[in-house]
Amino acid sequence: MSAQASSRFPQLTVWLPAWVDEFLPDPDTVFPSVEDRMQLAIDLARTNVEQGTGGPFGAAIFDMDSHKLIAPGVNVVVPSCWSGGHGEMVAYAIAQQVLQNHDLGGPGMPRLELITSTEPCSMCFGATPWSGIRRLVCGARDADARAIGFDEGPKLDDWVQALESRGIEVVQDILREQASRVLQDYAANNGVIYNGRND
Amino acid sequence: MSAQASSRFPQLTVWLPAWVDEFLPDPDTVFPSVEDRMQLAIDLARTNVEQGTGGPFGAAIFDMDSHKLIAPGVNVVVPSCWSGGHGEMVAYAIAQQVLQNHDLGGPGMPRLELITSTEPCSMCFGATPWSGIRRLVCGARDADARAIGFDEGPKLDDWVQALESRGIEVVQDILREQASRVLQDYAANNGVIYNGRND
Repeated sequence: MSAQASSRFPQLTVWLPAWVDEFLPDPDTVFPSVEDRMQLAIDLARTNVEQGTGGPFGAAIFDMDSHKLIAPGVNVVVPSCWSGGHGEMVAYAIAQQVLQNHDLGGPGMPRLELITSTEPCSMCFGATPWSGIRRLVCGARDADARAIGFDEGPKLDDWVQALESRGIEVVQDILREQASRVLQDYAANNGVIYNGRND
Repeated sequence: MSAQASSRFPQLTVWLPAWVDEFLPDPDTVFPSVEDRMQLAIDLARTNVEQGTGGPFGAAIFDMDSHKLIAPGVNVVVPSCWSGGHGEMVAYAIAQQVLQNHDLGGPGMPRLELITSTEPCSMCFGATPWSGIRRLVCGARDADARAIGFDEGPKLDDWVQALESRGIEVVQDILREQASRVLQDYAANNGVIYNGRND
């Protein structure tokens, strides 16, 4: 489609780092339990930091029936020069390219869930109803991210209920301790805590 | 950077449609008043519909001191297969590529504002503190978008105050009537009202 694209302005390309290709198992691999699926999101978060490709946040879109991976996501904010590059946003964007549909809950789509190593910030929360997923599974709490200095933004107090009232099931605290440890280790190693401007 | 990119998963490329190159005036053009700048966002919204390149929403990032355009944005949700492709998100993403910085409010950056033809949805609201802009100027109210069937998502009642408490000035109702007319005309012409899944 780039023949139809503006040549005056640059483009943003959202891509996954090359290491995910070797990191991930065969595409037909089944992740039977929710802990199996969360473990993948946590491992993506940790590996993203180790590889120097972004912040300590990982996510993944799974088919809720086959329990196979549709698309992973990792935080790419700093390397991509894109404040929207949170793990959840990247997972939504890549899954939508895999399935060639802006609505992952549209007709003909499999039933999909997002697994995220940390509860969504205000942006990723707001993006979730538009994504089309039917379930959101979270590891660390947003309080765990705030505890190391990441700003989760202004969120509704009842954000869980707000999603559930729109037909999106929310599951919290899956492997929370292990997911939080990724954040704590990142802070302990003086990882960059990027946030909105603070002046 | 694509040498470092995964080859197993597709990429999302966020780009502006080609018509913006001829539509926009010379890059050195100054838009002195806030109404001049809002007129551009409204015209982007209307032209995006006329050109068949997305929904009835336009936005633009301006330098608050020179009043020159840094980057426009239009809604590209359906053609890009990307639920995150709202006008505001596209403007943030393209401006961040222009300035090669994920934080438009970071050191060395000009003071920037976002002009948007309609108040932000819950996602674009949440994305705003991460973008680094210092002022958000809105045309139509979110109630005007809801009136034609677009879902603005679960937003804080005090979203304006939430942004202002983070140092982001919010200006509402600039050319609201004209901005709303773009939405009304879109609905009257049976434009596609895409939303999150509703089953």
